[in-house]
Amino acid sequence: MKSEARLDVGSAEKRGLSDFLVSMADDARLILRDIGKDIDASAKTDRSLVTAADKEIEKRCRERIEQVYPNHGIIGEEFGVSNAGASFCWILDPVDGTEEFVAGTPLFGSIMALHVEGRPLAALIDHSLLDLRLSACFGEGVRINNKSYEPQRRTYPTARIALSNRANFMRVGDESALHNTLLTEFSNSRIYSSCYAHSCTVTGGFDALVEWNVSLWDVAASELLIVESGGKYVDVTSSQAAEQGRVSAVFGAPQTVDQICSLIGVS
Amino acid sequence: MKSEARLDVGSAEKRGLSDFLVSMADDARLILRDIGKDIDASAKTDRSLVTAADKEIEKRCRERIEQVYPNHGIIGEEFGVSNAGASFCWILDPVDGTEEFVAGTPLFGSIMALHVEGRPLAALIDHSLLDLRLSACFGEGVRINNKSYEPQRRTYPTARIALSNRANFMRVGDESALHNTLLTEFSNSRIYSSCYAHSCTVTGGFDALVEWNVSLWDVAASELLIVESGGKYVDVTSSQAAEQGRVSAVFGAPQTVDQICSLIGVS
Repeated sequence: MKSEARLDVGSAEKRGLSDFLVSMADDARLILRDIGKDIDASAKTDRSLVTAADKEIEKRCRERIEQVYPNHGIIGEEFGVSNAGASFCWILDPVDGTEEFVAGTPLFGSIMALHVEGRPLAALIDHSLLDLRLSACFGEGVRINNKSYEPQRRTYPTARIALSNRANFMRVGDESALHNTLLTEFSNSRIYSSCYAHSCTVTGGFDALVEWNVSLWDVAASELLIVESGGKYVDVTSSQAAEQGRVSAVFGAPQTVDQICSLIGVS
Repeated sequence: MKSEARLDVGSAEKRGLSDFLVSMADDARLILRDIGKDIDASAKTDRSLVTAADKEIEKRCRERIEQVYPNHGIIGEEFGVSNAGASFCWILDPVDGTEEFVAGTPLFGSIMALHVEGRPLAALIDHSLLDLRLSACFGEGVRINNKSYEPQRRTYPTARIALSNRANFMRVGDESALHNTLLTEFSNSRIYSSCYAHSCTVTGGFDALVEWNVSLWDVAASELLIVESGGKYVDVTSSQAAEQGRVSAVFGAPQTVDQICSLIGVS
Protein backbone atom coordinates (compact mmCIF):
# COMPACT_ATOMS: atom_id res chain seq x y z
CA MET A 1 0.00 0.00 0.00
CA LYS A 2 1.57 3.19 -1.22
CA SER A 3 0.68 5.29 1.81
CA GLU A 4 2.59 3.06 4.19
CA ALA A 5 6.02 4.02 2.88
CA ARG A 6 6.00 6.74 5.49
CA LEU A 7 5.96 4.10 8.22
CA ASP A 8 9.36 2.83 7.11
CA VAL A 9 11.06 6.10 7.95
CA GLY A 10 12.79 5.74 11.32
CA SER A 11 12.24 8.33 13.99
CA ALA A 12 15.79 9.66 13.89
CA GLU A 13 15.67 10.06 10.10
CA LYS A 14 12.25 11.69 10.39
CA ARG A 15 13.60 14.11 12.96
CA GLY A 16 16.50 15.00 10.69
CA LEU A 17 14.22 15.58 7.70
CA SER A 18 11.80 17.63 9.75
CA ASP A 19 14.58 19.78 11.18
CA PHE A 20 15.91 20.31 7.66
CA LEU A 21 12.47 21.50 6.53
CA VAL A 22 12.30 23.96 9.42
CA SER A 23 15.76 25.28 8.64
CA MET A 24 14.66 26.02 5.06
CA ALA A 25 11.77 28.07 6.45
CA ASP A 26 14.30 29.96 8.59
CA ASP A 27 16.25 30.76 5.43
CA ALA A 28 13.07 31.92 3.70
CA ARG A 29 12.34 34.32 6.55
CA LEU A 30 15.77 35.92 6.28
CA ILE A 31 15.36 36.40 2.53
CA LEU A 32 11.84 37.79 2.92
CA ARG A 33 13.02 40.16 5.63
CA ASP A 34 15.78 41.53 3.39
CA ILE A 35 13.52 41.86 0.36
CA GLY A 36 10.73 43.29 2.50
CA LYS A 37 13.01 46.20 3.30
CA ASP A 38 13.45 46.92 -0.40
CA ILE A 39 9.70 46.84 -0.91
CA ASP A 40 9.10 49.23 1.96
CA ALA A 41 11.78 51.54 0.72
CA SER A 42 10.95 51.99 -2.88
CA ALA A 43 8.72 49.97 -5.07
CA LYS A 44 5.66 48.28 -3.65
CA THR A 45 4.10 48.41 -7.07
CA ASP A 46 6.94 46.42 -8.57
CA ARG A 47 5.77 42.84 -8.88
CA SER A 48 9.23 41.79 -10.03
CA LEU A 49 10.34 42.06 -6.41
CA VAL A 50 7.95 39.28 -5.53
CA THR A 51 9.25 37.11 -8.27
CA ALA A 52 12.70 37.90 -6.92
CA ALA A 53 11.69 36.74 -3.44
CA ASP A 54 10.06 33.61 -4.82
CA LYS A 55 13.06 32.74 -6.93
CA GLU A 56 15.71 33.51 -4.38
CA ILE A 57 14.03 31.41 -1.69
CA GLU A 58 13.38 28.48 -3.98
CA LYS A 59 16.90 28.64 -5.39
CA ARG A 60 18.43 28.52 -1.93
CA CYS A 61 16.17 25.64 -0.85
CA ARG A 62 16.94 23.63 -3.99
CA GLU A 63 20.68 24.11 -3.54
CA ARG A 64 20.48 22.88 0.03
CA ILE A 65 18.30 19.89 -0.84
CA GLU A 66 20.57 18.89 -3.74
CA GLN A 67 23.57 19.09 -1.47
CA VAL A 68 22.15 17.10 1.45
CA TYR A 69 19.64 14.81 -0.29
CA PRO A 70 20.89 14.50 -3.89
CA ASN A 71 18.53 11.61 -4.70
CA HIS A 72 15.38 13.36 -3.51
CA GLY A 73 12.87 14.93 -5.86
CA ILE A 74 11.88 18.59 -5.82
CA ILE A 75 8.72 20.26 -7.08
CA GLY A 76 8.83 24.04 -6.85
CA GLU A 77 6.54 26.75 -8.10
CA GLU A 78 9.35 28.67 -9.78
CA PHE A 79 11.78 26.08 -11.14
CA GLY A 80 9.65 23.00 -11.72
CA VAL A 81 10.54 19.36 -11.13
CA SER A 82 13.89 17.73 -10.34
CA ASN A 83 14.44 13.96 -9.98
CA ALA A 84 10.89 13.14 -11.10
CA GLY A 85 9.62 9.91 -9.59
CA ALA A 86 11.93 9.91 -6.58
CA SER A 87 10.41 8.33 -3.49
CA PHE A 88 11.12 11.40 -1.32
CA CYS A 89 9.92 14.67 -2.81
CA TRP A 90 10.20 18.21 -1.45
CA ILE A 91 7.40 20.55 -2.48
CA LEU A 92 8.00 24.29 -2.27
CA ASP A 93 5.84 27.39 -2.61
CA PRO A 94 8.18 30.14 -1.42
CA VAL A 95 5.58 32.96 -1.35
CA ASP A 96 1.94 31.92 -1.35
CA GLY A 97 -0.31 34.98 -1.48
CA THR A 98 1.77 37.06 -3.87
CA GLU A 99 -0.66 39.96 -3.97
CA GLU A 100 -0.78 40.08 -0.18
CA PHE A 101 3.01 40.14 -0.10
CA VAL A 102 3.08 43.08 -2.54
CA ALA A 103 0.38 44.90 -0.60
CA GLY A 104 2.28 44.47 2.65
CA THR A 105 -0.59 42.62 4.30
CA PRO A 106 0.73 39.80 6.47
CA LEU A 107 -1.50 36.99 5.19
CA PHE A 108 1.04 35.57 2.74
CA GLY A 109 3.20 32.62 3.71
CA SER A 110 5.80 30.06 2.68
CA ILE A 111 4.55 26.51 2.14
CA MET A 112 7.01 23.63 2.34
CA ALA A 113 6.51 19.90 2.60
CA LEU A 114 8.25 16.58 2.22
CA HIS A 115 6.17 13.79 0.68
CA VAL A 116 7.13 10.10 0.62
CA GLU A 117 5.60 8.25 -2.29
CA GLY A 118 2.95 10.92 -2.52
CA ARG A 119 2.07 10.99 1.17
CA PRO A 120 3.13 13.84 3.49
CA LEU A 121 5.84 13.12 6.08
CA ALA A 122 6.67 16.66 7.21
CA ALA A 123 5.04 19.98 6.39
CA LEU A 124 4.91 23.61 7.38
CA ILE A 125 3.28 26.94 6.66
CA ASP A 126 5.25 29.96 7.76
CA HIS A 127 3.87 33.50 8.07
CA SER A 128 6.92 35.66 8.58
CA LEU A 129 5.15 38.99 9.21
CA LEU A 130 2.81 37.38 11.74
CA ASP A 131 5.69 35.47 13.34
CA LEU A 132 3.50 32.38 13.03
CA ARG A 133 4.77 28.99 11.93
CA LEU A 134 2.64 25.85 11.84
CA SER A 135 4.57 22.62 11.38
CA ALA A 136 3.77 18.93 11.55
CA CYS A 137 5.55 15.64 11.32
CA PHE A 138 3.68 12.41 10.52
CA GLY A 139 2.35 10.86 13.74
CA GLU A 140 3.71 13.61 15.96
CA GLY A 141 1.01 16.27 16.05
CA VAL A 142 1.20 19.93 15.16
CA ARG A 143 3.66 22.48 16.46
CA ILE A 144 3.12 26.23 16.48
CA ASN A 145 6.27 28.32 16.60
CA ASN A 146 8.05 25.09 17.49
CA LYS A 147 5.92 24.39 20.56
CA SER A 148 3.48 21.49 20.85
CA TYR A 149 -0.01 22.59 19.96
CA GLU A 150 -3.11 21.18 21.61
CA PRO A 151 -5.81 21.28 18.91
CA GLN A 152 -8.83 23.41 19.70
CA ARG A 153 -12.19 23.54 18.03
CA ARG A 154 -14.40 26.48 18.81
CA THR A 155 -18.13 26.77 18.51
CA TYR A 156 -19.43 29.55 16.33
CA PRO A 157 -23.10 30.48 16.15
CA THR A 158 -22.95 29.94 12.38
CA ALA A 159 -20.53 27.56 10.69
CA ARG A 160 -17.52 29.53 9.57
CA ILE A 161 -15.78 28.31 6.46
CA ALA A 162 -13.26 29.73 4.03
CA LEU A 163 -13.39 29.34 0.27
CA SER A 164 -11.20 29.83 -2.76
CA ASN A 165 -12.20 32.88 -4.71
CA ARG A 166 -14.50 32.94 -7.73
CA ALA A 167 -11.61 32.88 -10.21
CA ASN A 168 -10.63 29.40 -8.99
CA PHE A 169 -14.15 28.18 -9.68
CA MET A 170 -13.84 29.36 -13.28
CA ARG A 171 -10.47 27.78 -14.06
CA VAL A 172 -11.65 24.32 -15.12
CA GLY A 173 -14.92 25.03 -16.81
CA ASP A 174 -17.46 27.37 -15.24
CA GLU A 175 -18.17 26.11 -11.72
CA SER A 176 -19.43 29.45 -10.43
CA ALA A 177 -22.79 27.85 -9.59
CA LEU A 178 -21.00 25.59 -7.12
CA HIS A 179 -19.26 28.59 -5.56
CA ASN A 180 -22.64 30.22 -5.30
CA THR A 181 -24.16 27.16 -3.63
CA LEU A 182 -21.38 27.08 -1.06
CA LEU A 183 -21.72 30.80 -0.33
CA THR A 184 -25.47 30.48 0.12
CA GLU A 185 -25.30 27.41 2.34
CA PHE A 186 -22.41 28.84 4.35
CA SER A 187 -23.30 32.51 4.23
CA ASN A 188 -20.79 33.33 6.96
CA SER A 189 -17.82 32.52 4.71
CA ARG A 190 -14.51 34.21 4.20
CA ILE A 191 -12.26 34.38 1.14
CA TYR A 192 -8.61 35.04 1.98
CA SER A 193 -6.92 33.66 -1.16
CA SER A 194 -3.77 32.80 0.74
CA CYS A 195 -2.44 30.03 2.93
CA TYR A 196 -3.37 32.02 6.01
CA ALA A 197 -6.85 30.54 5.57
CA HIS A 198 -5.23 27.09 5.83
CA SER A 199 -3.47 28.07 9.04
CA CYS A 200 -6.70 29.44 10.51
CA THR A 201 -8.42 26.16 9.65
CA VAL A 202 -5.72 24.16 11.43
CA THR A 203 -6.10 26.25 14.57
CA GLY A 204 -9.90 26.24 14.54
CA GLY A 205 -10.41 29.78 13.31
CA PHE A 206 -12.42 28.27 10.47
CA ASP A 207 -14.54 25.16 10.75
CA ALA A 208 -13.42 24.11 7.29
CA LEU A 209 -11.84 25.29 4.06
CA VAL A 210 -12.75 24.57 0.45
CA GLU A 211 -9.71 25.03 -1.78
CA TRP A 212 -10.60 24.75 -5.46
CA ASN A 213 -8.48 24.10 -8.55
CA VAL A 214 -5.20 25.14 -7.00
CA SER A 215 -1.69 23.84 -7.60
CA LEU A 216 -0.12 20.91 -5.80
CA TRP A 217 2.18 23.20 -3.78
CA ASP A 218 -0.76 25.28 -2.52
CA VAL A 219 -2.04 22.33 -0.48
CA ALA A 220 1.21 20.40 -0.04
CA ALA A 221 1.37 21.13 3.69
CA SER A 222 -2.32 21.18 4.53
CA GLU A 223 -3.29 17.50 4.71
CA LEU A 224 -0.65 16.69 7.30
CA LEU A 225 -1.32 19.83 9.36
CA ILE A 226 -5.05 19.13 9.37
CA VAL A 227 -4.87 15.40 10.10
CA GLU A 228 -2.23 15.86 12.80
CA SER A 229 -4.50 18.42 14.48
CA GLY A 230 -7.41 15.97 14.57
CA GLY A 231 -9.18 17.20 11.44
CA LYS A 232 -10.20 15.55 8.21
CA TYR A 233 -8.82 16.11 4.70
CA VAL A 234 -10.68 15.00 1.57
CA ASP A 235 -9.22 15.29 -1.93
CA VAL A 236 -12.15 16.24 -4.16
CA THR A 237 -10.23 16.87 -7.38
CA SER A 238 -12.32 16.23 -10.48
CA SER A 239 -10.78 14.17 -13.27
CA GLN A 240 -11.01 17.20 -15.54
CA ALA A 241 -9.10 19.33 -13.02
CA ALA A 242 -6.52 16.60 -12.49
CA GLU A 243 -5.83 16.56 -16.24
CA GLN A 244 -4.94 20.23 -15.95
CA GLY A 245 -2.69 19.65 -12.95
CA ARG A 246 -5.15 21.20 -10.53
CA VAL A 247 -6.09 19.99 -7.04
CA SER A 248 -9.24 20.58 -4.98
CA ALA A 249 -9.68 19.71 -1.33
CA VAL A 250 -12.07 20.11 1.58
CA PHE A 251 -10.58 20.02 5.05
CA GLY A 252 -11.15 21.00 8.66
CA ALA A 253 -13.48 19.80 11.40
CA PRO A 254 -14.73 16.32 10.34
CA GLN A 255 -18.42 17.14 10.76
CA THR A 256 -18.21 20.31 8.63
CA VAL A 257 -16.07 18.56 6.02
CA ASP A 258 -18.69 15.80 5.72
CA GLN A 259 -21.43 18.41 5.43
CA ILE A 260 -19.58 20.20 2.60
CA CYS A 261 -18.74 16.96 0.78
CA SER A 262 -22.38 15.96 0.93
CA LEU A 263 -23.42 19.38 -0.41
CA ILE A 264 -21.05 19.22 -3.37
CA GLY A 265 -21.83 15.59 -4.09
CA VAL A 266 -18.58 13.94 -3.05
CA SER A 267 -18.73 11.04 -0.63
CA MET B 1 -25.11 73.30 3.84
CA LYS B 2 -24.96 70.64 6.49
CA SER B 3 -21.59 69.22 5.54
CA GLU B 4 -19.82 72.53 6.12
CA ALA B 5 -20.25 72.46 9.89
CA ARG B 6 -16.89 70.73 10.02
CA LEU B 7 -15.24 73.84 8.58
CA ASP B 8 -16.24 75.84 11.65
CA VAL B 9 -14.10 73.73 13.95
CA GLY B 10 -10.87 75.57 14.62
CA SER B 11 -7.55 73.81 14.21
CA ALA B 12 -6.71 73.82 17.92
CA GLU B 13 -10.11 72.36 18.82
CA LYS B 14 -9.77 69.82 16.04
CA ARG B 15 -6.35 68.80 17.32
CA GLY B 16 -7.77 68.36 20.83
CA LEU B 17 -10.67 66.23 19.60
CA SER B 18 -8.41 64.12 17.43
CA ASP B 19 -5.95 63.55 20.28
CA PHE B 20 -8.85 62.56 22.50
CA LEU B 21 -9.99 60.00 19.93
CA VAL B 22 -6.49 58.53 19.74
CA SER B 23 -6.29 58.32 23.52
CA MET B 24 -9.51 56.28 23.58
CA ALA B 25 -7.92 53.83 21.14
CA ASP B 26 -4.94 53.59 23.49
CA ASP B 27 -7.33 52.68 26.30
CA ALA B 28 -8.98 50.06 24.08
CA ARG B 29 -5.62 48.45 23.39
CA LEU B 30 -4.86 48.11 27.08
CA ILE B 31 -8.23 46.49 27.75
CA LEU B 32 -7.89 44.14 24.77
CA ARG B 33 -4.41 43.17 25.87
CA ASP B 34 -5.63 42.27 29.35
CA ILE B 35 -8.65 40.35 28.09
CA GLY B 36 -6.56 38.70 25.39
CA LYS B 37 -4.51 37.08 28.11
CA ASP B 38 -7.62 35.54 29.63
CA ILE B 39 -8.66 34.20 26.25
CA ASP B 40 -5.28 32.64 25.61
CA ALA B 41 -5.23 31.08 29.03
CA SER B 42 -8.55 29.38 29.25
CA ALA B 43 -11.61 29.88 27.19
CA LYS B 44 -11.29 30.74 23.54
CA THR B 45 -14.66 29.17 22.93
CA ASP B 46 -16.35 31.51 25.37
CA ARG B 47 -18.02 34.24 23.36
CA SER B 48 -18.99 36.05 26.55
CA LEU B 49 -15.37 37.18 26.81
CA VAL B 50 -15.81 39.12 23.62
CA THR B 51 -18.92 40.77 24.88
CA ALA B 52 -16.91 41.61 27.98
CA ALA B 53 -14.20 43.27 25.88
CA ASP B 54 -16.77 45.14 23.81
CA LYS B 55 -18.61 46.36 26.88
CA GLU B 56 -15.60 47.28 28.94
CA ILE B 57 -14.05 49.34 26.13
CA GLU B 58 -17.27 51.12 25.26
CA LYS B 59 -18.00 51.79 28.92
CA ARG B 60 -14.63 53.39 29.47
CA CYS B 61 -14.92 55.49 26.30
CA ARG B 62 -18.42 56.70 27.21
CA GLU B 63 -17.30 57.67 30.72
CA ARG B 64 -14.43 59.69 29.31
CA ILE B 65 -16.58 61.40 26.66
CA GLU B 66 -19.28 62.26 29.19
CA GLN B 67 -16.66 63.75 31.48
CA VAL B 68 -14.85 65.85 28.89
CA TYR B 69 -17.60 66.57 26.35
CA PRO B 70 -20.88 66.29 28.28
CA ASN B 71 -22.93 67.84 25.47
CA HIS B 72 -21.68 65.52 22.76
CA GLY B 73 -23.70 62.61 21.46
CA ILE B 74 -22.55 58.98 21.54
CA ILE B 75 -23.59 56.05 19.39
CA GLY B 76 -22.07 52.76 20.48
CA GLU B 77 -22.65 49.19 19.42
CA GLU B 78 -23.16 47.97 22.98
CA PHE B 79 -24.96 50.75 24.83
CA GLY B 80 -26.84 52.64 22.12
CA VAL B 81 -27.43 56.36 21.80
CA SER B 82 -26.76 59.19 24.25
CA ASN B 83 -27.64 62.86 23.61
CA ALA B 84 -29.45 62.07 20.38
CA GLY B 85 -29.33 64.95 17.91
CA ALA B 86 -26.20 66.58 19.33
CA SER B 87 -24.07 68.33 16.73
CA PHE B 88 -20.92 66.43 17.73
CA CYS B 89 -21.34 62.67 17.90
CA TRP B 90 -18.85 59.95 18.82
CA ILE B 91 -19.40 56.61 17.13
CA LEU B 92 -17.85 53.52 18.67
CA ASP B 93 -17.41 49.89 17.63
CA PRO B 94 -15.04 48.56 20.28
CA VAL B 95 -14.37 45.16 18.64
CA ASP B 96 -15.24 44.83 14.97
CA GLY B 97 -14.64 41.26 13.78
CA THR B 98 -15.85 39.45 16.87
CA GLU B 99 -15.29 35.99 15.44
CA GLU B 100 -11.76 36.91 14.44
CA PHE B 101 -11.12 38.17 17.96
CA VAL B 102 -12.37 34.88 19.44
CA ALA B 103 -10.33 32.86 16.97
CA GLY B 104 -7.18 34.79 17.83
CA THR B 105 -6.70 35.94 14.23
CA PRO B 106 -5.45 39.52 14.15
CA LEU B 107 -7.91 40.92 11.61
CA PHE B 108 -10.33 42.40 14.17
CA GLY B 109 -10.13 46.06 15.11
CA SER B 110 -11.58 48.95 17.05
CA ILE B 111 -13.48 51.55 15.03
CA MET B 112 -13.92 55.03 16.45
CA ALA B 113 -15.03 58.30 14.89
CA LEU B 114 -16.26 61.78 15.67
CA HIS B 115 -18.93 63.13 13.33
CA VAL B 116 -20.11 66.76 13.21
CA GLU B 117 -23.66 67.09 11.96
CA GLY B 118 -23.33 63.73 10.30
CA ARG B 119 -20.00 64.38 8.61
CA PRO B 120 -16.71 62.83 9.85
CA LEU B 121 -14.20 65.12 11.54
CA ALA B 122 -11.82 62.54 13.03
CA ALA B 123 -11.67 58.78 12.63
CA LEU B 124 -9.53 55.75 13.28
CA ILE B 125 -9.32 52.00 12.88
CA ASP B 126 -6.98 50.27 15.29
CA HIS B 127 -5.68 46.70 14.91
CA SER B 128 -4.04 45.94 18.23
CA LEU B 129 -2.57 42.54 17.36
CA LEU B 130 -1.09 43.87 14.12
CA ASP B 131 0.14 47.03 15.88
CA LEU B 132 -1.49 48.96 13.05
CA ARG B 133 -3.51 52.13 13.55
CA LEU B 134 -4.94 54.21 10.72
CA SER B 135 -6.20 57.62 11.73
CA ALA B 136 -7.42 60.70 9.91
CA CYS B 137 -8.50 64.21 10.68
CA PHE B 138 -10.61 66.25 8.25
CA GLY B 139 -8.34 68.07 5.80
CA GLU B 140 -5.14 66.69 7.30
CA GLY B 141 -4.54 63.40 5.50
CA VAL B 142 -4.08 59.94 6.93
CA ARG B 143 -1.66 58.84 9.61
CA ILE B 144 -0.44 55.30 10.15
CA ASN B 145 0.83 54.54 13.63
CA ASN B 146 0.80 58.29 14.17
CA LYS B 147 3.11 59.04 11.26
CA SER B 148 2.06 60.90 8.10
CA TYR B 149 1.11 58.46 5.38
CA GLU B 150 1.73 59.14 1.72
CA PRO B 151 -1.13 57.38 -0.10
CA GLN B 152 -0.11 54.66 -2.51
CA ARG B 153 -2.07 52.93 -5.19
CA ARG B 154 -0.64 49.73 -6.61
CA THR B 155 -1.31 48.12 -9.91
CA TYR B 156 -2.59 44.57 -9.82
CA PRO B 157 -2.95 42.45 -12.92
CA THR B 158 -6.62 41.92 -12.04
CA ALA B 159 -8.69 44.42 -10.05
CA ARG B 160 -8.64 43.38 -6.42
CA ILE B 161 -11.70 44.19 -4.39
CA ALA B 162 -13.11 43.10 -1.06
CA LEU B 163 -16.76 42.35 -0.38
CA SER B 164 -19.11 41.83 2.52
CA ASN B 165 -20.02 38.20 2.92
CA ARG B 166 -23.11 36.53 1.53
CA ALA B 167 -25.03 36.87 4.80
CA ASN B 168 -24.97 40.67 4.43
CA PHE B 169 -26.52 40.37 0.99
CA MET B 170 -29.41 38.41 2.49
CA ARG B 171 -30.19 40.78 5.36
CA VAL B 172 -32.53 43.17 3.57
CA GLY B 173 -34.31 40.95 1.11
CA ASP B 174 -32.41 38.41 -0.96
CA GLU B 175 -29.67 40.27 -2.83
CA SER B 176 -27.52 37.20 -3.37
CA ALA B 177 -27.75 37.71 -7.14
CA LEU B 178 -25.97 41.04 -6.72
CA HIS B 179 -23.26 39.38 -4.63
CA ASN B 180 -22.92 36.84 -7.37
CA THR B 181 -22.63 39.52 -10.05
CA LEU B 182 -19.88 41.27 -8.11
CA LEU B 183 -17.98 38.02 -7.56
CA THR B 184 -18.21 37.14 -11.24
CA GLU B 185 -17.17 40.58 -12.49
CA PHE B 186 -14.40 40.84 -9.90
CA SER B 187 -13.38 37.22 -9.66
CA ASN B 188 -10.21 38.11 -7.76
CA SER B 189 -12.17 39.22 -4.69
CA ARG B 190 -11.60 38.70 -1.01
CA ILE B 191 -14.08 38.47 1.86
CA TYR B 192 -12.56 39.36 5.25
CA SER B 193 -15.70 40.29 7.19
CA SER B 194 -13.79 42.67 9.40
CA CYS B 195 -12.53 46.23 9.33
CA TYR B 196 -9.11 44.98 8.28
CA ALA B 197 -10.52 45.00 4.74
CA HIS B 198 -11.22 48.72 5.22
CA SER B 199 -7.65 49.34 6.35
CA CYS B 200 -6.28 47.40 3.36
CA THR B 201 -8.43 49.51 1.07
CA VAL B 202 -7.08 52.73 2.59
CA THR B 203 -3.49 51.60 2.07
CA GLY B 204 -4.06 50.31 -1.47
CA GLY B 205 -4.08 46.60 -0.65
CA PHE B 206 -7.51 46.49 -2.27
CA ASP B 207 -8.60 48.63 -5.17
CA ALA B 208 -12.02 48.99 -3.58
CA LEU B 209 -14.41 47.59 -1.00
CA VAL B 210 -18.14 46.91 -1.17
CA GLU B 211 -19.63 46.91 2.33
CA TRP B 212 -23.25 45.84 2.31
CA ASN B 213 -26.07 46.29 4.85
CA VAL B 214 -23.82 46.91 7.81
CA SER B 215 -24.33 49.12 10.86
CA LEU B 216 -23.40 52.79 11.04
CA TRP B 217 -20.44 52.09 13.34
CA ASP B 218 -18.98 49.55 10.88
CA VAL B 219 -18.26 52.33 8.37
CA ALA B 220 -18.05 55.31 10.75
CA ALA B 221 -14.31 55.74 10.19
CA SER B 222 -14.03 54.66 6.58
CA GLU B 223 -15.25 57.67 4.62
CA LEU B 224 -12.75 60.03 6.21
CA LEU B 225 -9.86 57.55 5.96
CA ILE B 226 -10.62 56.91 2.29
CA VAL B 227 -11.18 60.51 1.25
CA GLU B 228 -8.15 61.77 3.17
CA SER B 229 -6.03 59.15 1.38
CA GLY B 230 -7.20 60.39 -2.03
CA GLY B 231 -9.91 57.80 -2.58
CA LYS B 232 -13.63 58.02 -3.20
CA TYR B 233 -16.51 57.01 -0.91
CA VAL B 234 -20.06 56.52 -2.19
CA ASP B 235 -23.01 55.79 0.09
CA VAL B 236 -25.18 53.31 -1.83
CA THR B 237 -27.68 52.50 0.93
CA SER B 238 -31.07 51.51 -0.45
CA SER B 239 -34.15 53.10 1.07
CA GLN B 240 -35.26 49.68 2.27
CA ALA B 241 -31.94 49.12 4.03
CA ALA B 242 -32.01 52.60 5.53
CA GLU B 243 -35.40 51.84 7.07
CA GLN B 244 -33.76 48.92 8.85
CA GLY B 245 -30.84 51.04 10.05
CA ARG B 246 -28.40 49.48 7.61
CA VAL B 247 -25.73 51.22 5.54
CA SER B 248 -24.06 50.17 2.28
CA ALA B 249 -21.01 51.83 0.75
CA VAL B 250 -18.51 51.46 -2.05
CA PHE B 251 -15.10 53.02 -1.54
CA GLY B 252 -11.49 52.96 -2.66
CA ALA B 253 -9.69 53.99 -5.84
CA PRO B 254 -12.03 56.38 -7.72
CA GLN B 255 -11.88 54.49 -11.00
CA THR B 256 -12.75 51.14 -9.43
CA VAL B 257 -15.47 52.72 -7.29
CA ASP B 258 -17.07 54.20 -10.41
CA GLN B 259 -16.82 50.84 -12.16
CA ILE B 260 -18.58 49.09 -9.27
CA CYS B 261 -21.26 51.78 -8.94
CA SER B 262 -21.97 51.46 -12.63
CA LEU B 263 -22.19 47.66 -12.33
CA ILE B 264 -24.67 47.79 -9.45
CA GLY B 265 -26.70 50.58 -11.03
CA VAL B 266 -25.83 53.45 -8.71
CA SER B 267 -24.61 56.67 -10.26
